[in-house]
Amino acid sequence: MNDIIIKNISIGDELLIGQVINTNAAWLGNRLTDAGFRLDSVLTIGDSEQAIMDALENCMDADLVLVTGGLGPTADDITKPTVCKFFGTELEFCQAAYDNIISLFKRRGFLMSERNRGQAFLPKSGQYVPNTYGTAPCMWLEKKGVVFAFMPGVPYEMKGIFNDELLPRIKERFHQVPYEKRVIMTTGIGESFLADTIKDWEDSLPDFLSLAYLPQYGMVRLRLSGRHEDAALLHDTLNQKIAALVKLIPEYIFAMEDKPIEHVVFDLLKEKGLSFASAESCTGGNIAHVITLIPGSSEVFRGTAVTYATPTKTKVLGVPAEVIEQHTVVSQPVVEYMAQGVRELMETDFGVATTGVAGPSGGSEETPVGTVWIGVSSPKGVVSKCFNFGKDRENVINRATIMSYEMLRKEILSYTENAEL
Amino acid sequence: MNDIIIKNISIGDELLIGQVINTNAAWLGNRLTDAGFRLDSVLTIGDSEQAIMDALENCMDADLVLVTGGLGPTADDITKPTVCKFFGTELEFCQAAYDNIISLFKRRGFLMSERNRGQAFLPKSGQYVPNTYGTAPCMWLEKKGVVFAFMPGVPYEMKGIFNDELLPRIKERFHQVPYEKRVIMTTGIGESFLADTIKDWEDSLPDFLSLAYLPQYGMVRLRLSGRHEDAALLHDTLNQKIAALVKLIPEYIFAMEDKPIEHVVFDLLKEKGLSFASAESCTGGNIAHVITLIPGSSEVFRGTAVTYATPTKTKVLGVPAEVIEQHTVVSQPVVEYMAQGVRELMETDFGVATTGVAGPSGGSEETPVGTVWIGVSSPKGVVSKCFNFGKDRENVINRATIMSYEMLRKEILSYTENAEL
Repeated sequence: MNDIIIKNISIGDELLIGQVINTNAAWLGNRLTDAGFRLDSVLTIGDSEQAIMDALENCMDADLVLVTGGLGPTADDITKPTVCKFFGTELEFCQAAYDNIISLFKRRGFLMSERNRGQAFLPKSGQYVPNTYGTAPCMWLEKKGVVFAFMPGVPYEMKGIFNDELLPRIKERFHQVPYEKRVIMTTGIGESFLADTIKDWEDSLPDFLSLAYLPQYGMVRLRLSGRHEDAALLHDTLNQKIAALVKLIPEYIFAMEDKPIEHVVFDLLKEKGLSFASAESCTGGNIAHVITLIPGSSEVFRGTAVTYATPTKTKVLGVPAEVIEQHTVVSQPVVEYMAQGVRELMETDFGVATTGVAGPSGGSEETPVGTVWIGVSSPKGVVSKCFNFGKDRENVINRATIMSYEMLRKEILSYTENAEL
Repeated sequence: MNDIIIKNISIGDELLIGQVINTNAAWLGNRLTDAGFRLDSVLTIGDSEQAIMDALENCMDADLVLVTGGLGPTADDITKPTVCKFFGTELEFCQAAYDNIISLFKRRGFLMSERNRGQAFLPKSGQYVPNTYGTAPCMWLEKKGVVFAFMPGVPYEMKGIFNDELLPRIKERFHQVPYEKRVIMTTGIGESFLADTIKDWEDSLPDFLSLAYLPQYGMVRLRLSGRHEDAALLHDTLNQKIAALVKLIPEYIFAMEDKPIEHVVFDLLKEKGLSFASAESCTGGNIAHVITLIPGSSEVFRGTAVTYATPTKTKVLGVPAEVIEQHTVVSQPVVEYMAQGVRELMETDFGVATTGVAGPSGGSEETPVGTVWIGVSSPKGVVSKCFNFGKDRENVINRATIMSYEMLRKEILSYTENAEL
């Protein structure tokens, strides 16, 4: 196995004090994995010369070091001189970098400051890598055979540069043993029980394959991956093992690839030319939010009524006031009226509704915090179920959102399999 | 400065392949900073014995090492034996941990598996730290004066244990030089220009204070912090410097503490007994989503109409069809009708509305991708503004959400300052 060792150094005080979450490292790990590489470690450090020097020195056992951050207009006063010191070089003015900064400011109609001109000074012994996404430069330097690529920390810029410029250079530079992976998405079964259910199958895997359990918000992703010089053997073995796995747990699988459940629902509806809308109480707009992050979601998603206040459930969605009075607002009849009401209001094929107690306070003995009713209305009628998603507000909202999409997915399948479309 | 060195080791293949974002490290950094400590570095590694041994060994220059992850029912087969090897001890059954697991399963009404019993085996030389949030154990071990605390990686469990059990133990164990910080939240001015505007002030700061710029989605957080044996001097100097800073940039400040803008609006409305609702097109429910993450938000937030489909703008919000036809859906008259419409529909004091092109496709020459109209309706009337938030869909949605809250905040202030409430 000639695995190359790849490390990420994430620079930025803002990451260590927790004001910014290091999404860059996860994104890089994901992209590298998809390309058949493996991210070995991530080291997050602050904007200090000593920390940067130590981190760079510590990475001399790697083949490739991806450095993110520390290159903003106010931060690179520290990073760039430190980089020069480490590589034994000095800063010099780079016309290509300067031209890029000028054209960027022109396009945006902003005025340039002296600090922005300073961003065009780069280490002499490095290669300038174009960044069309922002003013911070990207640099490629080598020391004793170790490649160091420096990228800005702004996620939008970092992603653009990595995709456009760095990944092609990395692929060209480093040979890889063939790699392949499969991801299966499950919901409705906990990690421990899933592991027990598929234990014999897991024990039967050959050495060159490995399985990872990736639980989050009531879902478990299963990733089966491996490397082998014989790509065809790798491919066939994965096919066989995945086919055997699917037979063990068919009822829990909602996707045969790494895809969020709202994306599965989006694709299903788009393929069938169907639409939906949501009526949200405890999920507070999150069902709408996650689907509208998908470009083109307006093809299948018509809208949402978030009825946080009880009277608006009656006024906007037509839930009879006496039903709310009799059954309370977190109840089966109310969620079913909501699902049907929003389907009629937005004139869609499906309506999905939630009502519950997201917490952390506000529950009662009969309806404790975490109780959520979810309903799905379709041309065939309405179905609903009650869940308890625990005491953490964010967790309740996320789990209720995922379960809403899972119930919607099952109703779409049941409708399209039986109906004459 | 007797700063203690604190490091975090985050264990988990899922972090390196990017299927899970390391929010734990950011959360720990934030909590430690708030408590006057400083997180020195974060090292993220995979679930392998070698990586864990190397990481633990590498942290022997720290005073305190917080280890997160690697303790789930399927992962701790590797972590716990490795921990034993590093500390020269062995696993032994811990009755207290087992009792905790049993009571947890009872409470949730789930069946226990043999794997869960295995979680009650802990390193003999360590202290068991109770985890009332889940089945994974928390452990406190020492080696040559370095304290290692091991926590599970599930964020909800990790946060609970750290707050309840670990932080009090850490405070008791490590003495700290007095620390104080202030955060100022700004919007409407870019990082470079802000830095130029306050350059003289920044140059005047004493050595024991440091300033950080933390830009995100059109906001810049400014954090001024420091340590000094003389806590009163530190406090007074911070007061003076902050007062001087506020005079330089009053129009850009929306909060004098580290608070998201939706929280500022929530507090304002709550204090005044006022309410709002949103009508969202391009933000797709995100205005509702961020406010409903706040416990108790139903006191000020009544609901949302996400009108992704054009006809629902007419049907639900009463935007005249001929206005949409004449001006197009992304226009000033439409956003103003939406803001007024949702205010009437939800019977609130304020209505905020968005309509725009989130992209990445769908723009035109007159209305390019990134164009967003934002409107705010109040008892005084309606105001609206047009923005361009760039080409990245997620960025457009987030920046439009923040700017909606900023415009709403200014309208609330203008209304409550002038009105007889």
